[in-house]
Amino acid sequence: MRMDLNVDCGESFGAWTLGDDATVLRHVTSANIACGGHAGDPNVMRCTLRLCRDLGVSAGAHPGYPDLQGFGRRALPLAPDEIANSVLVQLGALEALARAEGVKLAHVKPHGALYTRAAADREIADAIAGAVAVFDRRLILVGLAGSQLIEAGRAAGLHVAREAFVDRAYEVDGSLRARHLPGALIDDVARGVAQALSIALRGEVLSWDGARVRLQADTLCIHGDTPGAAARAAQLRRALEEAGVGVSPLPALYV
Amino acid sequence: MRMDLNVDCGESFGAWTLGDDATVLRHVTSANIACGGHAGDPNVMRCTLRLCRDLGVSAGAHPGYPDLQGFGRRALPLAPDEIANSVLVQLGALEALARAEGVKLAHVKPHGALYTRAAADREIADAIAGAVAVFDRRLILVGLAGSQLIEAGRAAGLHVAREAFVDRAYEVDGSLRARHLPGALIDDVARGVAQALSIALRGEVLSWDGARVRLQADTLCIHGDTPGAAARAAQLRRALEEAGVGVSPLPALYV
Amino acid sequence: MRMDLNVDCGESFGAWTLGDDATVLRHVTSANIACGGHAGDPNVMRCTLRLCRDLGVSAGAHPGYPDLQGFGRRALPLAPDEIANSVLVQLGALEALARAEGVKLAHVKPHGALYTRAAADREIADAIAGAVAVFDRRLILVGLAGSQLIEAGRAAGLHVAREAFVDRAYEVDGSLRARHLPGALIDDVARGVAQALSIALRGEVLSWDGARVRLQADTLCIHGDTPGAAARAAQLRRALEEAGVGVSPLPALYV
Amino acid sequence: MRMDLNVDCGESFGAWTLGDDATVLRHVTSANIACGGHAGDPNVMRCTLRLCRDLGVSAGAHPGYPDLQGFGRRALPLAPDEIANSVLVQLGALEALARAEGVKLAHVKPHGALYTRAAADREIADAIAGAVAVFDRRLILVGLAGSQLIEAGRAAGLHVAREAFVDRAYEVDGSLRARHLPGALIDDVARGVAQALSIALRGEVLSWDGARVRLQADTLCIHGDTPGAAARAAQLRRALEEAGVGVSPLPALYV
Repeated sequence: MRMDLNVDCGESFGAWTLGDDATVLRHVTSANIACGGHAGDPNVMRCTLRLCRDLGVSAGAHPGYPDLQGFGRRALPLAPDEIANSVLVQLGALEALARAEGVKLAHVKPHGALYTRAAADREIADAIAGAVAVFDRRLILVGLAGSQLIEAGRAAGLHVAREAFVDRAYEVDGSLRARHLPGALIDDVARGVAQALSIALRGEVLSWDGARVRLQADTLCIHGDTPGAAARAAQLRRALEEAGVGVSPLPALYV
Repeated sequence: MRMDLNVDCGESFGAWTLGDDATVLRHVTSANIACGGHAGDPNVMRCTLRLCRDLGVSAGAHPGYPDLQGFGRRALPLAPDEIANSVLVQLGALEALARAEGVKLAHVKPHGALYTRAAADREIADAIAGAVAVFDRRLILVGLAGSQLIEAGRAAGLHVAREAFVDRAYEVDGSLRARHLPGALIDDVARGVAQALSIALRGEVLSWDGARVRLQADTLCIHGDTPGAAARAAQLRRALEEAGVGVSPLPALYV
Repeated sequence: MRMDLNVDCGESFGAWTLGDDATVLRHVTSANIACGGHAGDPNVMRCTLRLCRDLGVSAGAHPGYPDLQGFGRRALPLAPDEIANSVLVQLGALEALARAEGVKLAHVKPHGALYTRAAADREIADAIAGAVAVFDRRLILVGLAGSQLIEAGRAAGLHVAREAFVDRAYEVDGSLRARHLPGALIDDVARGVAQALSIALRGEVLSWDGARVRLQADTLCIHGDTPGAAARAAQLRRALEEAGVGVSPLPALYV
Repeated sequence: MRMDLNVDCGESFGAWTLGDDATVLRHVTSANIACGGHAGDPNVMRCTLRLCRDLGVSAGAHPGYPDLQGFGRRALPLAPDEIANSVLVQLGALEALARAEGVKLAHVKPHGALYTRAAADREIADAIAGAVAVFDRRLILVGLAGSQLIEAGRAAGLHVAREAFVDRAYEVDGSLRARHLPGALIDDVARGVAQALSIALRGEVLSWDGARVRLQADTLCIHGDTPGAAARAAQLRRALEEAGVGVSPLPALYV
């Protein structure tokens, strides 16, 4: 039993700081680093890579729609080949800085609206998976467990990692319950930990209305930009380790 | 006796077209492709790489100050490490798309104000050369013949290519005569061809005021955005070949 | 019988030139000037205002989705209040430069995807009309004849100008025939002139399949970025004037 | 005896928040609102205008070099007319949103590197003052006391407001002591208050090395982005009021 803990980071830009990377990265095993599309600039990207290296966190790319003002949360009307090209330049940009810092990128996880679209739209999922495959097929593609992106990654011959959430409720069909619906968010830390343990130990989760749902996941998403994020991440990690789950970065899955 | 002919290209952006790449690229051996810093977007970059591949032109990166509105012609007040980071993301972006098109990048030539600053300022030259070396030390660094960038490239252990101009006059000390001074520009095609032959065959050039100046160069810059550029490039190439100069891309220099 | 001829202009950006404003503006009565959203930068905007003033062309604002790379041709997922705010800053930006050049803006015509969305979506149309009304209710709002934008403008208490096209075919219901359908484009100049005369003199147009369609319009759109645009505009203007149509700018409609 | 207290605000952008405007604005009389050049987007700008209106704070424009990544802290190599055009579009953008919120702009204060350059370089100062004058000559131009910008504003026929600092030490010649020199920053709140009182009551300040320096100022700069900024602003305001200084917005100076 193994589980990766991943967090989005490197989402500052110029004079604007977002999140407290130096703290939260101490409690996770994988870092999704913004690549200048939705956030991050070359200097922020490089500092974040250095931080990952110094903290021993596995670094990955976090490409998003190229939209700083919208922070990648708006689905831009891009054709699949335009999405592929945008993902490629973001991967290349981060990887170039990673070479300069002696860091080897391990994974790719799309951000925001690109993540959501890639979960539901196979054409977009294929565009992203194809871009990753042509860029470096050793990269692990991270997507929502059960989503089109996981399918597209497998079809492209990539290693994939299925992501689950500890602070979001699930529907009976295994999809995430939409944010605006009642019961969608799990604020209670103990309930979040219980959900994480259920996923890691039994490969299942209780849906928001109490049904057992099969949910196999390789990595859990930690949100780093909320108050108390680091403490919650530490608590979650401890609970997993005490239950005998090996908390280790994504590449350990595919050794 | 060998000489490379290089041209800037891929300088369109979105709906805006600049230059006629498809025509002028037929007459040169090396293409300097804009990387999204001063021009180019991911789609333009990819199309330009494909064009180079299809025409058999050796492709290289043309990073510039990140300044679309200024087209990289304004020297931004960036620290050397910021310049290095900007060059790295531009190299990485282009190289990622090059992988997708099965193209191997051969060289790097800074653009506009970055080229000019790197010629005169050793700290900036070192930042660029260091970025190229850490990214891929097989890349050939192109800079003004006799400039700081050539020195910095050699010091960084890179192959370098010394660039000369056929439509610009030289001073006695081997520097380019400043554009705004009388006699700085060589509009006459025959004079430009004569200057190219003198450089290629004898490693020298006549300064604007008639003195013999030693000038060893590996590549000649072709300006593609002027009317009649393609015809002039063809004429120059023919003249070089008839004089026994092997017109061949940069990598041939270091075989 | 009066008719305005309008053309999009000021769509250059930095080093990139689009269209030949100085030529085509000689043949029209109203200029829609890009405001930095989809095209135009402060320097281009100011030069274009000066050109309008010197040529005696009535100047208006041409706000678009804030998307340089997409040239405003992509409908961004903006909420109506975000659209209103974007339109306001674009109007304000152009108007500030207009003060500096002693130019009084006369109209507002949305660009590209914003024009199309505002024609069909009343909420977006209301957002735009509301922004114009709060900015300056003397501005004339230009929209597709028969569209939601015209309705929204009237509801907001604005003067409106209904736009028709001479190089596009119409459906029986008075809507524009979609570009990708056969017969959508009118390439033949004589047919375009005939359509313009029919609109100006009889307030009707023949649909692509030959039916009479009522179409009242105050202004005809001239496309300036096609080869021969200026000559065609001149021919159209002459034909209208010879038929007794007073070709005059939009403000003349509301004197 | 009157004194205005001004603070920079509206410097968030998209998902990035900077400063705590809602708190610090309660303690000042004038707000310098970012205009989309160095910070601010149309939505942030409008929210900030509304906040000023609701809190009864006098609103002004805070134009900067158009450089989001550099936050306007880098002096871009723009010609004076380009600076004027950039200032004009920023003023126009903010003023358009101000109309929508029923706010009348009262002043203009350049930001960051533009403020610093305008203090020392008369050509840049004239470009800014000229832009303000042509845009709306009722706007009060705020600049460093004793600087070129104040001179330029007077020469352009504008009302001006001379700014002084409570957390920065002065040289004997009345200039600000450069940040990197020892003794440049006044961290101690009591010393800052004492400096403010000295300026407001006696029109003088003690230089860092203890000499009396004449310093007439109309407004004091409050830095809102440091921890405890609101509390310090409140303390400063109370001290001024208790000493009989009328703390009132800039327009009160010119009634």
